[in-house]
Amino acid sequence: MTLKKLGEKVDGQVIGDDQTEVFNVSSIDSPKSGTIVYIEKEKHIHEVLNSPATALLLSRTISTPRTHKPILQVNDGKLAFIQLLKHFNIGFSPLEGIHPTVILGDNVSIGDGVNVMAHCVIEDNAKIGDGAVIYPHCFIGYMSHIGEGSLLHPRVTIERGSILGKRNIISSGVVLGSDGFGYYDDRKGERHKVPQVGIVETGDDVEIGANTTIDRATLDKTYIGSNTKIDNLVQIGHNCYIGKDCYIAGQVGIAGSSRIGNRVTLAGQVGIVDHVVLEDDVVVLARSVVTHSIKKGEVVLGFPAKPANEAKKILASLSRLPKIIERLKKKGG
Amino acid sequence: MTLKKLGEKVDGQVIGDDQTEVFNVSSIDSPKSGTIVYIEKEKHIHEVLNSPATALLLSRTISTPRTHKPILQVNDGKLAFIQLLKHFNIGFSPLEGIHPTVILGDNVSIGDGVNVMAHCVIEDNAKIGDGAVIYPHCFIGYMSHIGEGSLLHPRVTIERGSILGKRNIISSGVVLGSDGFGYYDDRKGERHKVPQVGIVETGDDVEIGANTTIDRATLDKTYIGSNTKIDNLVQIGHNCYIGKDCYIAGQVGIAGSSRIGNRVTLAGQVGIVDHVVLEDDVVVLARSVVTHSIKKGEVVLGFPAKPANEAKKILASLSRLPKIIERLKKKGG
Amino acid sequence: MTLKKLGEKVDGQVIGDDQTEVFNVSSIDSPKSGTIVYIEKEKHIHEVLNSPATALLLSRTISTPRTHKPILQVNDGKLAFIQLLKHFNIGFSPLEGIHPTVILGDNVSIGDGVNVMAHCVIEDNAKIGDGAVIYPHCFIGYMSHIGEGSLLHPRVTIERGSILGKRNIISSGVVLGSDGFGYYDDRKGERHKVPQVGIVETGDDVEIGANTTIDRATLDKTYIGSNTKIDNLVQIGHNCYIGKDCYIAGQVGIAGSSRIGNRVTLAGQVGIVDHVVLEDDVVVLARSVVTHSIKKGEVVLGFPAKPANEAKKILASLSRLPKIIERLKKKGG
Repeated sequence: MTLKKLGEKVDGQVIGDDQTEVFNVSSIDSPKSGTIVYIEKEKHIHEVLNSPATALLLSRTISTPRTHKPILQVNDGKLAFIQLLKHFNIGFSPLEGIHPTVILGDNVSIGDGVNVMAHCVIEDNAKIGDGAVIYPHCFIGYMSHIGEGSLLHPRVTIERGSILGKRNIISSGVVLGSDGFGYYDDRKGERHKVPQVGIVETGDDVEIGANTTIDRATLDKTYIGSNTKIDNLVQIGHNCYIGKDCYIAGQVGIAGSSRIGNRVTLAGQVGIVDHVVLEDDVVVLARSVVTHSIKKGEVVLGFPAKPANEAKKILASLSRLPKIIERLKKKGG
Repeated sequence: MTLKKLGEKVDGQVIGDDQTEVFNVSSIDSPKSGTIVYIEKEKHIHEVLNSPATALLLSRTISTPRTHKPILQVNDGKLAFIQLLKHFNIGFSPLEGIHPTVILGDNVSIGDGVNVMAHCVIEDNAKIGDGAVIYPHCFIGYMSHIGEGSLLHPRVTIERGSILGKRNIISSGVVLGSDGFGYYDDRKGERHKVPQVGIVETGDDVEIGANTTIDRATLDKTYIGSNTKIDNLVQIGHNCYIGKDCYIAGQVGIAGSSRIGNRVTLAGQVGIVDHVVLEDDVVVLARSVVTHSIKKGEVVLGFPAKPANEAKKILASLSRLPKIIERLKKKGG
Repeated sequence: MTLKKLGEKVDGQVIGDDQTEVFNVSSIDSPKSGTIVYIEKEKHIHEVLNSPATALLLSRTISTPRTHKPILQVNDGKLAFIQLLKHFNIGFSPLEGIHPTVILGDNVSIGDGVNVMAHCVIEDNAKIGDGAVIYPHCFIGYMSHIGEGSLLHPRVTIERGSILGKRNIISSGVVLGSDGFGYYDDRKGERHKVPQVGIVETGDDVEIGANTTIDRATLDKTYIGSNTKIDNLVQIGHNCYIGKDCYIAGQVGIAGSSRIGNRVTLAGQVGIVDHVVLEDDVVVLARSVVTHSIKKGEVVLGFPAKPANEAKKILASLSRLPKIIERLKKKGG
């Protein structure tokens, strides 16, 4: 495809020969002949100019380098990069149909254009929305509902009663609707399991990473809002409510009954204790532990999580601590 | 069912109209007409009184509110709540039998009233106790033993030789009996895998959360004691011994060869290094790292874990550290 | 087998009756009659001498105890222990062949002596090297390549395009090639998924622990070098490059695009932020968070990770902090 045509696709302008053809995108680490390379930071331009890459994709904010290679210049380079990736890498499109090894319960409702692959098990009264794609070894429990256009990677477990919105992408190994961790030691010292009879529900365009687990509620539901993206190996406890447009990074753990607002970011390996509230737009930096509720828009860090600038001062102080103690000792005698 | 009859079931007393009928339990967050709501904390009574909920379940320790809604008063509200949840939500009871898609090895012993669902694989010489229920896509390895009345959720892996006690509940995605992380770099710098020929064994009434992994022992066994409850995404290393009646919360990691006593609580995201001993009744607070053995009944916190009151003093001091350093600087010149 | 013959096998010398027969290895925790026990630390000799164990395996560095039990003395006790474990515990060797319930796509290439067990799914154009063993419920995606002699435990997911080297051992529940966590919020506030069109590639003799997840690259590949050993529940983000001969312990998380050199050790629950470089022979101690690049051979600890001796001084100072603050308060008025 010529750069001219690509430029029309991504609303960009070609500097240099717009009849140059490229057949894919490649990376700054491994720039290939015949491809266009997206350069996010100015400092990487030089090495790409000296590489076999055929063309460059740049935001207008980056000053145009002197080169014979043609440049595709756009307002938002990252967005154009995503558009080109999609253009050149058309998703694998599996055939429609239900594989003969799939075990279907009674009264299962299957929408139009659905693909359910080998060895899946779908229990009674489940409902699969139009255009859903379900890879091998998935389990979809009794009364569950998979929304239109959702994609389940291989061996996902959807426990009974779960409700997934439209266009969810669920990675391999995810467990939705496992029992919450609820027990009660009575006065005689006997341990009882609290029955977990609630469900998990997700909004639209939710994505959940590999081997993440989300527990069903005791009553009512554990909820994940639309457009929230969850990374791998995350644990979300029973009765949690998570708003829209959140980012939850790898290995985060959220204990039971916490409420997370909209547009909240939880960085890697964060922990949230039970029954706290994180208001909208909160950012929790990596590895922090949130032990109390956090107000709208706050950025927090540390254990226990504090306003980030305060926590950073403490971390900086720590480096000086051994010397200070040494000095005080000498003085104090 | 009338409140009168429910009261007999949970050993409680009805205040108000005992002929009122309820058909389920609902929560304080979403109280529904026709249901009884368990109120744990006095402060929530008011909102439930003004809700569509039909009746209230209260412990005797909570003073009786003035209301027209009937109240079921009991000694232990939480216990009665559990009993009512069980009463109204009879577990899904799958049919008996071995699904035709199950692959059975030679010499597999299947007890009475067992249910093995679609696509499970059970290897040679395995033994499934009476009344066990095994959901789809489970793998039960050579010579393994599943105790009576145990429940395996979908796609659980039981590696060869594992022995599970009675009434275990194993959540989806659990791996029991994976190889321990054992290697040896010899003097020539060659790396050798230490063969892991031991097993995993559990007592009775053990519960294991979704996607948790427990490694087999090098020799002998990794052991989980009766009535111990383990949450999601927990890692337990080879040769660990865990006692009875423990609680192990989400994302805890226990390195190899550690010994955990009875009634030990490990809160969320705790780490335990290898070869330490936690005596009975130890409590490790959230996110702590235990680097040495802990005496009976101690409550510890931090990295490295210290007695909790000591650790809390340190955390409190930290907040004051930046100012103190500032002040010392001014003074010290 | 007589100790004499075992001694020849492991290049050792028998002290005492070399016609004594043993049939297995047992541990110092549970020494059994008819077995040989490897004693790593001198302090454990006494209890083994008073146990039913039949013989002792000792390194020459440990002084020979006075006993009637025969001793097998070797240069490297641990290495001999591994050799004996292998000798007495011949691995379970599954039959060759493709189980009739396996679903094979078009144009799948299967090497000699391969075993693919029940209910596996192998998609189009995948390639399975000679002697590979694939346990039940594995999914091997489109165009993937499993190297010669590799072993996949039950229900491993190999997403499309992954390339595994020779003699890999992949534990149950592993997901290789899940989508990286890549999104972009454009200037209009719309959220876009960045297509992840790269792959995961591993070298030879890589081992990956249960329920670990490794994301595919956005472009190019996420790479794990030969002979690197990864424990359970580890998360490795997209575009990471990990060198040869590394050890990565349980629950470690490595964010996207980081580069780890050769012979690097990451202890349990370590976190590595994105885009940092750990040079060869770096050691990151337990629970540390690496927030910046680390030079060759450094040993680091803490959050943020610092040279370990510095970090240890800070940890030691912390214990004294509350008293110091108390004292300063009294003085300062």
